[in-house]
Order: sequence, then structure tokens, then C-alpha cells
Amino acid sequence: MIIVMKKDATPEDVAHVVERLESIDSQAHISEGRFRTVIGALGDRVRIQQLPWEAMPGVERAVPVLKPFKFVSRDFQEDDTVIETRGVSIGGGTFTAIAGPCAVEDRDLLFRAAEAVKKAGATVLRGDAFKPRTSPYSFQGLGEAGLEMLAEAREEFDMPFVAEILDPRDIELVSSYADILRVGTRNMSNYPLLTEVGRQPKPVMLKRGFTATIEEWLNAAEYIYKEGNHEILMVERGIRTFETAARNTLDITAVPILKGLSHLPVIVDPSHAAGHRYLVAPLARTSVAAGADGFMVDVHPDPELAKVDGAQALLPEEFAELMDSIRRLVAALGPQE
Amino acid sequence: MIIVMKKDATPEDVAHVVERLESIDSQAHISEGRFRTVIGALGDRVRIQQLPWEAMPGVERAVPVLKPFKFVSRDFQEDDTVIETRGVSIGGGTFTAIAGPCAVEDRDLLFRAAEAVKKAGATVLRGDAFKPRTSPYSFQGLGEAGLEMLAEAREEFDMPFVAEILDPRDIELVSSYADILRVGTRNMSNYPLLTEVGRQPKPVMLKRGFTATIEEWLNAAEYIYKEGNHEILMVERGIRTFETAARNTLDITAVPILKGLSHLPVIVDPSHAAGHRYLVAPLARTSVAAGADGFMVDVHPDPELAKVDGAQALLPEEFAELMDSIRRLVAALGPQE
Amino acid sequence: MIIVMKKDATPEDVAHVVERLESIDSQAHISEGRFRTVIGALGDRVRIQQLPWEAMPGVERAVPVLKPFKFVSRDFQEDDTVIETRGVSIGGGTFTAIAGPCAVEDRDLLFRAAEAVKKAGATVLRGDAFKPRTSPYSFQGLGEAGLEMLAEAREEFDMPFVAEILDPRDIELVSSYADILRVGTRNMSNYPLLTEVGRQPKPVMLKRGFTATIEEWLNAAEYIYKEGNHEILMVERGIRTFETAARNTLDITAVPILKGLSHLPVIVDPSHAAGHRYLVAPLARTSVAAGADGFMVDVHPDPELAKVDGAQALLPEEFAELMDSIRRLVAALGPQE
Amino acid sequence: MIIVMKKDATPEDVAHVVERLESIDSQAHISEGRFRTVIGALGDRVRIQQLPWEAMPGVERAVPVLKPFKFVSRDFQEDDTVIETRGVSIGGGTFTAIAGPCAVEDRDLLFRAAEAVKKAGATVLRGDAFKPRTSPYSFQGLGEAGLEMLAEAREEFDMPFVAEILDPRDIELVSSYADILRVGTRNMSNYPLLTEVGRQPKPVMLKRGFTATIEEWLNAAEYIYKEGNHEILMVERGIRTFETAARNTLDITAVPILKGLSHLPVIVDPSHAAGHRYLVAPLARTSVAAGADGFMVDVHPDPELAKVDGAQALLPEEFAELMDSIRRLVAALGPQE
Repeated sequence: MIIVMKKDATPEDVAHVVERLESIDSQAHISEGRFRTVIGALGDRVRIQQLPWEAMPGVERAVPVLKPFKFVSRDFQEDDTVIETRGVSIGGGTFTAIAGPCAVEDRDLLFRAAEAVKKAGATVLRGDAFKPRTSPYSFQGLGEAGLEMLAEAREEFDMPFVAEILDPRDIELVSSYADILRVGTRNMSNYPLLTEVGRQPKPVMLKRGFTATIEEWLNAAEYIYKEGNHEILMVERGIRTFETAARNTLDITAVPILKGLSHLPVIVDPSHAAGHRYLVAPLARTSVAAGADGFMVDVHPDPELAKVDGAQALLPEEFAELMDSIRRLVAALGPQE
Repeated sequence: MIIVMKKDATPEDVAHVVERLESIDSQAHISEGRFRTVIGALGDRVRIQQLPWEAMPGVERAVPVLKPFKFVSRDFQEDDTVIETRGVSIGGGTFTAIAGPCAVEDRDLLFRAAEAVKKAGATVLRGDAFKPRTSPYSFQGLGEAGLEMLAEAREEFDMPFVAEILDPRDIELVSSYADILRVGTRNMSNYPLLTEVGRQPKPVMLKRGFTATIEEWLNAAEYIYKEGNHEILMVERGIRTFETAARNTLDITAVPILKGLSHLPVIVDPSHAAGHRYLVAPLARTSVAAGADGFMVDVHPDPELAKVDGAQALLPEEFAELMDSIRRLVAALGPQE
Repeated sequence: MIIVMKKDATPEDVAHVVERLESIDSQAHISEGRFRTVIGALGDRVRIQQLPWEAMPGVERAVPVLKPFKFVSRDFQEDDTVIETRGVSIGGGTFTAIAGPCAVEDRDLLFRAAEAVKKAGATVLRGDAFKPRTSPYSFQGLGEAGLEMLAEAREEFDMPFVAEILDPRDIELVSSYADILRVGTRNMSNYPLLTEVGRQPKPVMLKRGFTATIEEWLNAAEYIYKEGNHEILMVERGIRTFETAARNTLDITAVPILKGLSHLPVIVDPSHAAGHRYLVAPLARTSVAAGADGFMVDVHPDPELAKVDGAQALLPEEFAELMDSIRRLVAALGPQE
Repeated sequence: MIIVMKKDATPEDVAHVVERLESIDSQAHISEGRFRTVIGALGDRVRIQQLPWEAMPGVERAVPVLKPFKFVSRDFQEDDTVIETRGVSIGGGTFTAIAGPCAVEDRDLLFRAAEAVKKAGATVLRGDAFKPRTSPYSFQGLGEAGLEMLAEAREEFDMPFVAEILDPRDIELVSSYADILRVGTRNMSNYPLLTEVGRQPKPVMLKRGFTATIEEWLNAAEYIYKEGNHEILMVERGIRTFETAARNTLDITAVPILKGLSHLPVIVDPSHAAGHRYLVAPLARTSVAAGADGFMVDVHPDPELAKVDGAQALLPEEFAELMDSIRRLVAALGPQE
């Protein structure tokens, strides 16, 4: 931590900061400039970052040198985390395609979608039984019945599936069905939920809050990791900006940033970022180019019947074409180091 | 809903949209312009807004004419909602000061804060027993012990108190102690939590998500309202923007916008918006000028000992001064019509 | 400047940074932490801030301790700048009302507006002869003919006027007519224009770019100041955010931040921030509460005839009512220290 | 245009809007819903969009059906615009690499950069003689001397060059040297400058304002086009968001959106978006994947000596490696339809 004192800070103010540092077994390195005194704080990061430096007299601001997260950082683990589920590996140099309907609406539509994405080369199925909706009057998902259909589709098409978890009270239920649990963008800072998914055994997909910084997102992953669950997939799905031509702005730069800061696999969700079908394929292709470990897209056999996000779902034939170009791109870039 | 067709939409595309509208007992008004055909949809708003118009062939975009929320709108109830709790009225022309420490740390600090804010003119006490923290290594609150201290302070100083609820599993606990439950900015889109607070009897303070639009915020209020709880206070606490000089950007414009759209009382929280003590008093004063029904600020007898947000807490004497100027401003503007 | 080295920076990397610092007569204070080495750079701020520290091997990031602007800061001049023009003082404890039509459309409409705002208590007239418009097909202003009408209105109603300057080639023309030149939000980073207004003798109103940070805005003021023109008024007029309910989000927090960082007067323009008439009066009132030195609003006798921004113009009677409440608020707060 | 009336709009309000529409030879289609009356306006887009509908009594809002720009839209010209300069074609299915130093600092550094980028496969040289800098104390460019060096490099390495134009007074100068003129991000809404570049004969590269919507950006291109210059290249270079891990957020989604809306070529500048060298190559690769017509990157033989943006410049060997992967990606995707 670097503590910048105000222009008019007194020697007592400086002494007080030093004293507080020493009280937590940290050291103070003082640099006196012409206009400002700067105090470098050396010691235990967590203890230092917890004290309210900016509440102390004479302090202008406190700038952290180290990130607040530990276990999810590359500093802590250099090698990529690889997640295994029912024979599928995610991360560590592979590129994984995850696809399926946004929500489970009925058995037939789900099975048609699952069959199509499997055939085109997807190895993980998506489909939700619980949906967080902006309006209370929108379809909220089929609940356990939806999970059952997903489990049947898993057997039929031999693909693990990922499903959203909204409520800490549903942990046992969802964890007993799904192969991967997903924490959605609206719940990235729902700490009770993060804690619960950290305590169950299935891998967790953590979507970026659409207004979360990358640092906040890694802090959310740290919540899960520190409870004992180390199998976390980070999903970039677009952030909220002033631009309204797409639903959100896909932050493709987050991919290489995250690969630098963390050992966790990074997946891109172009469907929810774009909100419009015609944008999904080009954005999906950028995920390969940016170095992501995979992508996740909405595919629906009849988007007009979709109860959630039909406007962004690819048709099965569009998805098959996309997969062709994805394979060519993956081959062109060769194994990622 | 207004449905704008693509330039190259076919007569079949138009006919299909009309047919879908008629299938839900709605009417279509067709305007054929030189470059685009536009279809006005007349009928039940909820049914119309649920269909995926943009997934249909030939549709460019669908523009809602009506807002998606109903019960919380001025269209539904013209008169201001007034909330009563232990003899304090909020809304409907009064101006309410809510103050206290951000988090409850110990009995002594809480009581000193409560005494000070009561004396200066606050009528509702704030103080949290559960805190959502960005880092898992930060102080997370005292839990039930904190609620007990708040209940004692309530008796001692004869002030109702508001406290945060984070987890739907804590509803009974928090509701049994607090006079007003607060849903925090990170939980504005936590729909299971919104549903639960909508089913318990205490008034609910709903903070705006720092990345939520005003429309999404009113939708969140609608979740609570439709469960049967009509006593909702809307709290503006700053939004996330590119500006980093303050922690967030207080969206003071949201106050008159909300007063126009909704009958619910609007409170301003300048402390969490600002993040810095020196900004709190001027921002608190803008809440009166903008026509809010009250404000809520952090006050701490010794901010350096605060475990949460010490940098933004007012000292008791600063709060007393602020209250003086607030009273003068309220008097200058006279009763709000 | 504080230079944070990468985790794997070598002693040579550190030595190289120290050498570069010494080559510009600056000193290096080195703190070696467990994970990172941090170098405090002491010396001439401008020389230090110009070197590309982050391009050097082993450097993670460089954090400035001091702001890049000098002359416009309170560090440089403690007392408020007061601007005098034709008997009107702006800044230093007064509160100034600036009003008039957005653009000059014809003599009659201008004179009706000027008469009304003068009568209600405004002391400076606004009205533009050159308008920057998003669409090339929109009305672009009357040019010199508009300036002539403004000069006539100045004589008739005995009020100085402020007018926008768009093009460095028009400097002599606009400066020969207007009492205050305004640089608009789209030109805040138009450095040739800033340089030219810095070289002419009339005071300059510098609107904040709607996407500019407060620091960039003060840097823009520094461009003007360093050319010799010290009479600069800073105008907050809303920033671009994700919220679309108002045209822009008035950043009222910028007022107290700016009063802390700089000695220049701060004016609030609620009209362009709001974009809707019904929001203008409450926002104008917040400018007093936040401690601004004045406000500037659009007033038009017949907004439907306005060629620019009619939707946000106050009617003369609305402006008169607003001025009444402004006077009461100014009296309630008393002289600003 | 669709005009939505307020809930309490009177029949007179509706009649008045209709009358105003008829006064400009447009037609009104009226739909009366249960809660709102909606008026569809049919007629000349420009005339309709100029009237201040939202200033009229009883009008809630006016929603444009058509975009305000015409000539730069795909509606106006279906085929891709292809720009030719000194034997290089940009747009229409090719992929162009533009590279060189951010600013021209001296002849030797420029020539070393030009030689390296030419050898690696770039076909257009970049390098600026005029630089817009946030701080007035930063290096502002070599002016004409820099343009002369660029012209020499053009001859030596047989590559056209692109250079920034900042000031309408420099048009003749820059246009007489450069093969392509660039309007920078800070000047995207500098209308006098747009008008001037529209009147000279060289192609114009128009960078997106870092806070401009795609629609505003196309409006800016329309300013140039309507003056007679139809050779415009659109450059996406990142937008300002709340995320600070990179300098700006590259809006890669803008590429397919723009390809849909307009016939103009789209170039991606990952260097200025990223601000950090390690992010440039992955982002450059996303430009191919997203369907752009080329990319532009900063390359410097010795970034530490760079006077502008050294932290983001690629080394010549890094650029050569990037070009290898770009060629493989272009081949993998095949000719863009």
C-alpha cells in the first residue's frame, strides 16, 4: 500500500500513520517530496488493506500495490487450471464449445437443440431451469422439472450440462443435477450465493457482472475459491456502457487481461453480450483470436418460441457454420502456449 | 409496442407479425413509410411485451410505448406513498434524516453514534449487522449480535432503525428485529431476495444498483410490490461511470425523474456515492434541492475505528452542522407540492 | 511519481529506472516489499511525468502522486478567481444566473428572451451564433448576424453576453463581439481552439466534455491559462453514462470536487444535462446546494419555434419562478466561505 | 418518426402535432391505445427530424424510425467502398495492415520503424507530426518537419502514409504531404475540421470518439461525405467505460455493427484501445475474426525513447510475429463475402 499524505499534513499526521502501520507489524518507508509526503507500507497485505487509511487525518489517498485477491492469481499458481467434467476438459490449451437454449421450455425443444449442438461439435450443453428476469411478469423457468429434462438430455446425448443457480436455498437441488453450476451476471456480487457454490463439489461458472471491473470479478472468484472449490470458469459476457447498438459491449480485452492475472479458464458468451443474432458469430470468432478457452452460445431450433432471449439465439444450421469457422481459426492459431 | 420492420421485410413477414399479435387478442395498426413499415401493437401490455418480436423474420426492432412496471407507477397511483414506522412518516411532503454508522462494530460506538444523530435531528437510525464486501477478507458484520445492539439502541434513543438484508435465509431474523429492511445496491437484481422481502411485513428500502437504469430499479420495486408489500423506499446512492474522483457519481437527476414516474418516496445516500467525507455535506444538501423525501448518511464517532467505509463517515459535529443547513434549505423551499 | 515494478523485475530493471530518474535530476526512493519493488520518484513533476516509465523493462505501472495541472490548482492559488465583465462579478461568493436562448434564431425571439431573463434577475445573457450539431443537416447558427443581434441585445438590456466559439479561425470575430467566449463540450479537447482562446482577452467559459474526467477538464483549463488568459469559468453540463432517462447525467459531485482542486469559478448548466424541461428547475436548485458559483439555463419565449434544443428550454414564467426559489436558497445558505 | 403522446394529452395536443406534420408536407398515422396515443409521421426524414417535437404540448417522446445519416449508410450504397491510394486498396474483401510509430520523433527512429513494418508486411505507414495531448506540457509533435520526414520515408519504402490533422488551418499543409488524413478521437465532433477534410482530395480516416455512439460516429462521417469526399475509413479505437485495466475498452462489436449499417471500410486500432503492449497482439487478431478491413498498430524500434505512448508500442520483432498469425487467420477465414 502506498499512502499519499495531503499537502498540509502535519508531522503528527505522518507519525500517526506510521504508528498504525507498526501496530499491525508492518513497516513504513517515508519519502518526503516537495509537495507531498508518501508512505510505503510493507507487511501483510490483508491486514494492511483492511485499515481505513483514508479516514486518518492528513491522508489524501491510499493506493494498493498488490491486488486484493490471492488464490485465483497467477502469482499464487502459475499453471493454468484445467477443469474436468464427464470426460470433457476445459482450459489448459483446449477450446471448448458450450451451446444450447437459453432456458429450458419443453422436452422437445431442448432435445432438438441438444442434438443439433452435439452434432455440430459442442461438448457441453447449456440450458436453464431458473431464470433471473428484469420484469416480475416474465417467464422465470421450469425449476426442477427443467433440471430433470436437462439430465435426460445429458444421458441421451452424452454431454455434461451447465445450469444457473439463483438462490442459495436451491444449492443442493441444482448441484445434484447439473455438472457445472453457473452464477449469473446479476449475482456476481451475491456473496451468500458465492459462498454456497464454493462449498459444493461441482465446478462453478462465474459470469462477470455487467458492471463489474475485472478486479471485482476476480474478488468474487476468490470468495468461491477460499471456501474450497477451486474449479472456477470465468465468463465474459459484455459490460454496460453508453453504447446501445448492441445489448452490452463485449469486453474482449478482458480475455488477455484475465489470462495474465489469473490461472482460471476464460469463456466468452457472445450471445448475451450481443442480444442480436447477426452479431453472435463474429463475436464468437473473436473469442478464439483473443485467446479464450472456449465460448458459450444460445442455440434454439425455433427462436420465435423461445421464452427468453429468442432474438439472440442461433439456429442449428447457423451454429454448425460457426463451428466450422471456429475449427479453422483454432487450427490457424495452433496450440496456445 | 411499436414494431419496426426491416427495409427488406416481405409482406409475409408483416402478415406473420400481425397474426402473432392477433393470436394474443391484440390489434395491429400498420403504417407503410417509404423505407420502413411500422406496426403499432395495441392490447394487453404484459402479453405483448413477453413475445420475442425481434426474433421474428423481418423485424428490425421493437420499441415499448409503455413502461414494463405497473403498480409502482404514478399512472397506477397518483398520490405519494407515505410510510409510517414507530411514529415516523416518510414521504408525502416531509423530509427525513436517516443516520448512523455504516456497520455495527460494538455497542459503545453504536450508542455514541445513535445519541449524536438523534440529538442533531435524525429520526431514523441506520447500522448494519450483515455487510456485503467486495473482498472475502473484509469484515462481514456481527450478524444477530449486531441486530440486538441495534434493537437496544432503538429503545434507548426511541428511533426506528433500518438494517441490510443479504440472504433470503435471514429474512425472519432481520425482519424480527429491524423496522425497515434494506436491500443493498449489489442485491437490487437478486430476485429471490426481492420476493422474500415482498412477503414480510416491514417496509423495504431498495437501493439502486450502481449500474441499474431507473427503469430496472422500478422493475425491482415491482417485484416487491406484487408480493404484497407496498411500503417501499427508493434510495439513490450513485452510479458507476468513468469518473473516478468520487467513488460513484450521484445521479441527482434520478430524484425528479423518479418523483415523476412513481409514487414511492425517494431517499438520497450521499455517503456511499461520494466515498469521501468532504463531499457528503454538499451532496446531502442537493437532495433537498432536488425534491427528495430524505437522505441517509454515515455518521461515526471515530471513523478511524470504522471497519467499513470510515473514509466517508461524518463526525457527529459535522452531522449537526449539516442538519442546520438542511433545516434552512427545507424551510426556504417550503412544503413540496 | 510512484513506479511499481513487476514481480519478476530484475535488479538491472530497477537500476535502469533509477538511472533514467537521475538523468533528469530526480531522486529515487526504493522500497523492496515481499512481492514488489516500489520506486518513489522525487523531482520536477513535468519532467518526470513526460518519461514513458511503463515502456521500460520490468515496470508494471506508474502512479502519479501530483496532478498534471499546476496554474489552475488551489495549490498554486489559494483564493478564488473572480471574473469581472461589464460590471458583473462571477465567483468569490456570489451566485450568478446566466440565461437566454440556446441559439439566436431571430431578433424578436432573442429580445423577448433577453427582456424576460433580465427582468427575472439574470445578469448575463446566453445565445449562440455558431452551433455544433450532431447531424450535418441541422441548423448551424446565424454566424456574424447572430453576434450582431446579441450585441444589440446587450445594449438594450445592459447585460454582457456569452457565445460559443467553434473554430479557431473565428476567434477575432467572436472575441470582438462577445463578453465571454464559450468552448463547448465537444471542443473541450480541441487544443488549437483552447490555445487561441487563451491568447485573446475575453474571459472563457470551458464546458466539461461530456466524457471527460475532472482531471482532463482541468488540464484543458491549463491549456488556456498557460497562454496568458486566467479568466476561466468551468461549466459542468452532465456526463455520458448508461442512464438514458435524461440526456446526460448531471455530475453535481463535480462541483465540490472542483472547488477543492481549483480556484476557478464553477457554473452548472442543468438544461443541456437534462434535455427535458421538467428536470431543469430541480437541477438548477442543486447547483446552489452543491456550492456552485452560478448556473446557466436555456430560456425561450416559444420553445416550439426553437431551432436547437427546444425540449429543454424554460418558458419565461418558469424561469421567473425558478429565480424566486434560487434567491431563497442562496439566502438560506448564506455567504459561502 | 414515431411521436408518443403523454397519458393526459388532449385532443388539441394531438391535432396540433398533426397540423405541424402537415405543414411540412408529412402525413400522420394515429393509433389510439388505452393509455397512450401514438402518431406515426411519414414524409421527408430530414424535415421531420428537425422539428422540436418534444417541445410541443402533450408530447412524451419522439422515436426516430430512420437513422439521421443517409449517404454513408448501406441503404444508400449497397457495395463496399474501396479506397485506393498509391497502389494500396483498402476495403472490399482485403485486409490491410497499417503500422508505424505513434509520433514522428526523428528521422532515424522513423526510418527504422518504417523499414521494419514494411518488411513484416504492412502496406501503409502511420506516424504523426501533430499530436493532441491531454497535458499542455507534453510533446506536441514536430509539425511540418515531421511531415517531410514521413514523405521521405514514403519514397524510401514505397508506402503511402497516414497522418493526423488537428487544426482546420493546417488542412492544405497536411493534405499536401499525407496520403490519408486522420481525424483523431478527440476531434470526431469537431465539425469545422470535418467540413474541411471533406473538401480536400485525400482519403480521410475517422477515428471514433472514445465516447461517441456508433450513430454519432456515422453522423460525423456524413459531415465529411456531404462535402464531397467519399473516401472515408472508420477506425474503432476503444471507448471509455468504467473498466480501467486497459486504457479503453475496445468495442469489437462495433465492427460487425458498422459493416451492417454502412458501406465504409472499418479499421481497428488495438494500440490506443489497449494502452499496454501485451494486449495489442491478441486484440489485433480479434479484428480479423470480427470481419474488419484492416488494423493499425503502433510499432517503435525503441519504445523507451518514444515521446508519445511508448507503453503500447510493439517492437519490430513482435510486429513480425503478429503479422504471421494475422496471415494465418485471414487465410483460415477465407475471402469475406
